[in-house]
Order: sequence, then structure tokens, then C-alpha cells
Amino acid sequence: MKLHGLSIVAGQPVQSRGAGYRAIDPTSGLPLEPEFYEASEGDVDRAILSAAENFAELRRTPDETRARFLEEIARQIEQLGDDLLRRINAETALPLARLQSERARTCAQLRLFAGVVRDGSWVDARIDTALPDRQPLPRPDLRRMLVGLGPVVVLGASNFPLAFSVAGGDTASAFAAGCPVVAKAHPAHPGTSELVAEAIAAAARAVGLTPGIFSLIHGGPEVAQALVRHPATAAVAFTGSYQAGRALCDVAAARPHPIPVFAEMSGLNPVFILPEALRQRGAAIAQGLFASVTLGVGQFCTKPGIVFLQRGPDADAFIAQLTAAAKDAAGGVMLTPKIAEHFLEARQKILEEPDVSVLKINNVKDESRSGRSGGNVSQNAEGFGAAEKQVRPSIALTTAAQFVKSDVLRREAFGPFSLLVLVDSAADFATCANHLEGQLTATVHEANSELAAHAALLHVLERKVGRMLINGFPTGVEVSPAMQHGGPFPAASDPRFTSVGTAALLRFARPICYQGFPDALLPEALKNSNPRKLLRMVNGQPTRESIA
Amino acid sequence: MKLHGLSIVAGQPVQSRGAGYRAIDPTSGLPLEPEFYEASEGDVDRAILSAAENFAELRRTPDETRARFLEEIARQIEQLGDDLLRRINAETALPLARLQSERARTCAQLRLFAGVVRDGSWVDARIDTALPDRQPLPRPDLRRMLVGLGPVVVLGASNFPLAFSVAGGDTASAFAAGCPVVAKAHPAHPGTSELVAEAIAAAARAVGLTPGIFSLIHGGPEVAQALVRHPATAAVAFTGSYQAGRALCDVAAARPHPIPVFAEMSGLNPVFILPEALRQRGAAIAQGLFASVTLGVGQFCTKPGIVFLQRGPDADAFIAQLTAAAKDAAGGVMLTPKIAEHFLEARQKILEEPDVSVLKINNVKDESRSGRSGGNVSQNAEGFGAAEKQVRPSIALTTAAQFVKSDVLRREAFGPFSLLVLVDSAADFATCANHLEGQLTATVHEANSELAAHAALLHVLERKVGRMLINGFPTGVEVSPAMQHGGPFPAASDPRFTSVGTAALLRFARPICYQGFPDALLPEALKNSNPRKLLRMVNGQPTRESIA
Repeated sequence: MKLHGLSIVAGQPVQSRGAGYRAIDPTSGLPLEPEFYEASEGDVDRAILSAAENFAELRRTPDETRARFLEEIARQIEQLGDDLLRRINAETALPLARLQSERARTCAQLRLFAGVVRDGSWVDARIDTALPDRQPLPRPDLRRMLVGLGPVVVLGASNFPLAFSVAGGDTASAFAAGCPVVAKAHPAHPGTSELVAEAIAAAARAVGLTPGIFSLIHGGPEVAQALVRHPATAAVAFTGSYQAGRALCDVAAARPHPIPVFAEMSGLNPVFILPEALRQRGAAIAQGLFASVTLGVGQFCTKPGIVFLQRGPDADAFIAQLTAAAKDAAGGVMLTPKIAEHFLEARQKILEEPDVSVLKINNVKDESRSGRSGGNVSQNAEGFGAAEKQVRPSIALTTAAQFVKSDVLRREAFGPFSLLVLVDSAADFATCANHLEGQLTATVHEANSELAAHAALLHVLERKVGRMLINGFPTGVEVSPAMQHGGPFPAASDPRFTSVGTAALLRFARPICYQGFPDALLPEALKNSNPRKLLRMVNGQPTRESIA
Repeated sequence: MKLHGLSIVAGQPVQSRGAGYRAIDPTSGLPLEPEFYEASEGDVDRAILSAAENFAELRRTPDETRARFLEEIARQIEQLGDDLLRRINAETALPLARLQSERARTCAQLRLFAGVVRDGSWVDARIDTALPDRQPLPRPDLRRMLVGLGPVVVLGASNFPLAFSVAGGDTASAFAAGCPVVAKAHPAHPGTSELVAEAIAAAARAVGLTPGIFSLIHGGPEVAQALVRHPATAAVAFTGSYQAGRALCDVAAARPHPIPVFAEMSGLNPVFILPEALRQRGAAIAQGLFASVTLGVGQFCTKPGIVFLQRGPDADAFIAQLTAAAKDAAGGVMLTPKIAEHFLEARQKILEEPDVSVLKINNVKDESRSGRSGGNVSQNAEGFGAAEKQVRPSIALTTAAQFVKSDVLRREAFGPFSLLVLVDSAADFATCANHLEGQLTATVHEANSELAAHAALLHVLERKVGRMLINGFPTGVEVSPAMQHGGPFPAASDPRFTSVGTAALLRFARPICYQGFPDALLPEALKNSNPRKLLRMVNGQPTRESIA
């Protein structure tokens, strides 16, 4: 599979070649062919302007064409076959089995959004018919529906090279809402990005859509900022670290015309194990928790990074069970050397706090206390270095008092690590929860309805998180109408939206109201006839009927 | 009606007294009794913390109580009777007839939101039931609904002392969404604000709600910023000028935890009169337009501030008709001396541009060219001064070429003024529209379906505005499900939301997803039984049925 290494603007590889870079195979540490070239300012400008110019055409495209476009992207991705998976594997070290399921998820979510577009009711059509005789004033005919915002910049994630990248949930929901997309290739998987971008371009050709509705741009943070700053950019979707997400939010807010950014910036995903659950199901929870912490080498936004449980013999047993669950755990290669380095640094900071100790699991020496100095990456076998790219999972232990005191313990370490916090009494659960920032998820393990006695904990969590789980593990994120993947800041930049599930397209849509329009000039969704039997709110009542 | 002049925190007047100020009667220019006192930092802190502490209680209050609370606020406002209207009139110079209709609208919108709360379906409940046997992975039970964001700061408008102020649409929609409110009294109508705030406090007592869910704070821009900056503030609603709105957006975006601000910042509300409409209905349009421009002394967010029409004999006739329509137009007292001053300054800047001339209407001398110097307010009879508080309406004329060239001509002059732009050909309509910023509204006057030949104009406007009207005038803003009052920046800070109509409460709500919850622990809206027959999306299908 031949890669050209160029940005793709409106279906065509660009000819200008900025600074070159290569993807790194994280397993070997060696660069991969070919060279990729950062986009120029002119490329960025042409990509966004092309999106803006073709926005009107995409808006006026029949829904059926847009639905087929999304389905065709899925088909084109599937047609790339194992060549695509091999390239992703080379760029990310994610195993083929995982990539197969990620591909299935990516294609399923493209088809799910095709279904939403075909159904059509997502536009939330609302019609208030004229009341010409109303006193003291007549009411005009008012008809409102959601329409796309305009060009959407998609800044994908490193950890889902398909499902949250060039043709991932952000792109699928933007296209579904009728918005053109300019995606920036993540520098950790530029080859994957090129293959998927060509699949999107081929899909546009196949259904007869103008190629201008999609571009792929190569580059780093400066290019990302240029895309966000461009006057014709209407909205931004980002998945990644807090630092990068916050920087983009700040750029968007400082524009002459600020634009919405949905940044999903992850978090700690706290887990609370209530006493009865700990007593009854400690071993099972330990096993499930360890699997959740280490899934994909801990590189999930929803990885449980902190676990609260009550001090005592059951906690001692749980720690022993966790140690047992972990005893055969292998290390793993992280997505990029930089991510591994950041992980080890973040974990190190946590481990250096007072009253924090590392559980002796997996025959891992306490690597955090040795082998690293002066900010350099550890070169010994327990850390990460040129000779040994594997990062081993670890679990640490601290007290509720220390957790409440230390800001460092509330920071995410993105990787296979979790911190157990021993609380002294059941009342401490709510207190600790109160010290958490906004989160994507929170999980409570309970048994025999003991949660009924922890209403305070539940109420605190309801204010802090986007998704609450009982007796589950947060790392599975279903793509469905009821999913919420987001949460109060800093989990996401705007708690009112989600990046997973069918509601994700609401990030990229705005209402427009047509007053006094003749039927002929109204969009189809607002016409009297309602030929597609959309569910609409007519004079305050939901109905699929036409208007007489 | 005795006023105490104090901020009201959680139902109680505060004892601390900051800097004192008095409302000004804009008709006489004289201060009104009593003195009002700016809130201290401590008052701001206590008001927001009280809102935050009582948020959980408000969330758990049955919808029926919240609905009765909104209705009781309306009843309490009505019970204030004409005393309230007299105070508003003294503070704003708005005539009693207008205030009667504004009161009716304010109470109607409180009752409308009560209906929304009682109906309950606004929470957009979505349920994906568990699929334990699904391959390759089971699906957990997922249930999602909207909940209130938390304490909302309401910064009301000067121009709607009831409908967009302390108990206006922002407050009604925040309470409807389950959010406590801290309102800042607009310094132009502090007495009105106190009366309405006491009505809200009395309503809370009447229905047994804790007084902590509402506070009224006196103060200027620094106090507004302190309210927006407070860590426990969850969202902000603002209606007013671009400068003030943008400043608040910047403060909110710079917080350690940014929060959503909905700022409605007005605009030009362009009107396009197509040739056939101009020929057939020029006189009627002139009359309606002039009434719309001068309604409430031009102090509406939706005042048509710019009008495009094609040069030629019909335009000459229209200008004569407009002059005729205006011949008996009286001047009016603006809401505050400062607003009048800003208006005259903004208008002056427009009139000083090249190729801009003033129509000789209403026997008004070209006041813009004389009587003002060095930024001082004109003291002559045509301007605004100590002896003569009236501002007279005026209309100016320019060319499309000048409009396209001059940023100044794209700025709002908030008051009884509109600018006619003569275009050379029908193609210029779309070109001019392209040079407009985001707008709350745009209006097209057409006849004999001539609009069908102006698809380009319609497409440009659809990208630029929140509400499009055909053959109407934008100054009436219906409060109904289909209304959209907002638009692309700078009309509003976020085009995805509205401040008028039932959808306004979506500004203050966020989704939360409950995964694997036992029925007993779910909120009522998500329980299997669905006792209130809410319209919910169950496994992707809208239904009012319960779940077996």
C-alpha cells in the first residue's frame, strides 16, 4: 500500500512540502517509511476555505446521499483490509485483535450515523402555526430546525487511530450534521490517517459529493492552532490531553469570533467500592478492575485511575486479590515514546507524594524510586528505554487524608496505573468525591442495596460526572443514543455535549427559525406535507402527522 | 411600596452596604429614592455558595413543585399591580401600555416554562436496554437524561426590565432546568429588580422551596465579573451590548474551569427589499419598517438597523414614502442617559462616513453634523441634553460600495436609527449579505415569488442568522417552542442556543448517563414504569410506553 505522505486538500494531494517527519514504530523505536510533510499555511487556508465554500452544497445534499456517504466510508475502510490494520499496528503497537474490533466499531458508528441521517428526526423540527386572529397580537408562522454549523476541524486522538481519528466519531457526527470536515492527522499515525482520508475521498467520489467537503492536514500543534484560528472554521472537536485541549479552547475563545470547541480531556474515572461489595465480591472486582486499568496498556480515556475503599481486613484481602490478579500481567508498548515518557513522569510525581506506596505486583521493582534521574526516561528493565519498550502496570496506595491534601494525586497518569485510596469510614467516600474535579465517569460497586445508605455519595457524583456506573467497569464506551461521553470541566470543555453516541452530532448543529415562509421555500423537514414522517413538535405536541 | 435598596441573599436582605447609587428617572434626569448599595465580595460569595448548596435540593424537588414555583412567581408579579409598573416607568421611561404588555409576556413565559416542566419530556430521556447475549460483547443498560448545570448567573437587559431581567426568560428557563439563580440587578432599574426579587422570594416561600435557590445582587461590571468568576458558578446568561457581553465571555473562558456563557449581543437585523416587493408594497413596507425601527425608541435587539434596496425610481418613491411615514414621528426618552449618549455617538460615527447622508424626515435638522463636538452629547433640541431628553428617530442613506468598504457601517447604533443601502443590481443583495456578521434576524420582503430567483441571498442569510423572516418585521419575538433568538457570533456567543422560547432551558442542562443502575436508584424519568408517560427514546425509537 503506497503512501504519498502529503496533505490532501479537497481530494487532491497537495504539492507543497513543509517540514518532513516520519511515524515511529513504538515497538522498535525506529522510523517508518515514507516521509510525511507538514502542511503550509496556504494548505490550511485552502482546506478550510474549500470546506466553507462547499458547506452550502453539503447542506443541500439530500439526506439519503449523506447517509450513503457515511456508509460508503465504512465500506471503503473495510476494503482496505488487513493492510490498514498492519499499518496501524506498525504506527501504534496496538495489537491486531484490538484493531479488528476498533475497525468494526468505527464502521458501525459510521453506519449508526447514516441511520440517524436517514431517519431525519434529529433536526428537532418545531412548528408553531400562525394564529392570525390571536389577541392582542397575531402569531406568525414559525418553523425551526437544526442545521450544520459549518466547517468542523477534527483533531483526533492517539489512542483510537480509527474510532477517534480521521473517520472516527467526530468526523461521522460532523458529516451527519451536514458539516464539512478538515481533519488533522495525528503525528503518531500519519500513514493510518492518509489511508483513511483516501477512503473518505473515494467515498465522496462514489456517491457524487464534491471532494471539497473533506481535507486531511499534516502537522503539529502550530498547525492545529492555525486550523482553530482560521476565520472560516465553525467548530472544533478534540480528544486528547488536558494541556493540549485547554490550549485549543483558549485559542478558540480568543478569536475575534469565538467558536465552540468540544475537547474531551479525560480524567481519573474514580471507582468507589462500598464495604459490602468489597466483602462479597472483592476478588471479582479486583480482577475486573485490573483488567480495566491495563486494557490497551492503560491508554483509555475511561481508565479507572483512582479507587476508593474502606480500610480494614476486607481492604487487605482486596489488595492481596489485586496482587494475585496482576501476577501474570505483562507489560505493554505504549502508543508513542512521548506518551510513555509522560506516563512515567506523571506516575513518578504521584509516587513521590508523601504516604504513597507501590503495591508489589507482577515482580515489578519499585521502578519509580530508582533508575530515573534529571527528568530522563528510565533505562532499566522496569521502566521504558531504548532496549526495552514495555511499560509494566502498577498500582499504588494512599490514604484519604493524603488524597484530600494533594493536588498531585488528582492528576491523571495516562497509562497502566491506578491509585487505591483507603478511607477510614463510609462517610469519607462523599468527602473524597467532593475533592474530585469533573470526570467522564464514576463507578460504584455495591451489594445488597447498600448504596441506598450512600445517597450523599451519589449526589456528589451526579454533579461531577457524565456517566455513572453501578457494578461495572468504565472502559467500555457503547456507541448508542443513551451514551454520554463527556462531563463537567476538565473532563470535557462543555458538559452539555457528548463525543460518543448519536447525540454527538448536536455539537455541530444550531437552530434556525423560518418565520412567515411560504411552504415552497421551506426546507423539506419543515414543510406541511412531512413526507418522511419526521417526529416534529407541532404547536407544542410531538407528532409525525402532516399539517393540513 | 417601600424599597430597602439592599441585595437579597437567599431570601434575606443583606446588612453590608457597599457604594451607594440611585436609579435615574431618564425623563427628568433626576435621581430616584431610595439609595441602593452595591454588594460586597462576601455577598457575592454567599449568594453563589447558597445557590450551589441548594442546587441538590432544587434538583430533587418534584417537577410539580418547580412548575408551581414558576406559576407562583407570575402570580406574585401580577399581585404587585400598578405599583410595579409605575416604578418601572420611573426608572426606564417605558410607557405604561408597553409595560402592561411586557408584564403579560413575562408572566406568560413563566407559565409556559411551568408547562414544560410539568410535561417533563424536555429531559430527552434515552434508554438503551441491556443486551446480555450480544456478541462479541454484551451491552449494558444505559439511561440518559438532561439535568440542570448548577448555579446560573443572570445578567439582565436594560431594555426589558421584566421580560429579560430578574424574573425574565433567563431566570424562568434556568429554574425550569432545575438550576438556582443569582441575578444581578441592572443598575438602570434597581427598584424594579428588588420588587421582582421579593416576588421570587415570596413564591419560593409559598411553595415551600428553600430561599437559597435565588439571590439578587446589586452592582456594576466588576460585580458582574465577580459573579462570573466565582468557582461555583456553572453558567451565565447575559443580554446587552457586544462590549459587555464579550468581556464576560472572556472572563468565563479564562477561568481555571471555563463555563458556558450565553450572551445575546444584538446586531443589525438586516432587511432586504426585493424589487417587486418594493414596487408593489413600498408604502406599506415603509410604514411597517419605520414603526419597527422606532418601536420602544429603537431599543430592541431585533430593531432593523440596515435596509438594502435597489437604486431606481421605486427606491426614490420608497424614500419619499418613508419620509411621509415618519412625518408625525415623535421623539422618545431613552432608557438611560448613557444609552442615549452611546446611541448618538454610534450614529454620529456612521454619519461621518463618506457617502452617508441623512434623510430629511420629521423636520429634524441634520443634528449629526452640528451641535456636537469633542465627544460631548449634543445639547441642542435635536439631540439629547439636560433640557430636552428626547431622541428623535433618523434614517440615513448610503451606497452598497460604501457599505462593503466601511466596517463602521456594520456596527449597531442601539436606538431609533436605520441605514438604507442602495444596491446597483439584484446580484448586490447577496454580496452585501456576505459582508454582514452573525445576526439575530434577517428579513426579506418579496412579491410574486421573486425570492425564488434570489437563492444565493437566502443561502448566505441561512449561514448568518438565527431567524429569517419573509414579509414581516423582526421586532416581535414570539415566546414559543419554534422561536430562535440567537445566532452566529456576534449576535450571540454560541449559535447553538436560544434565549427565547422553550428551548432556552437547554442552555442550562447537561446529559448524565446511568449505566447498570437498579430501577429503584434511577431518577423517575428513567425508570421502567414511566408513570408520567414521558416521550422517551427507547432503543432508538420514540415512545411513551413503559418498559416491560
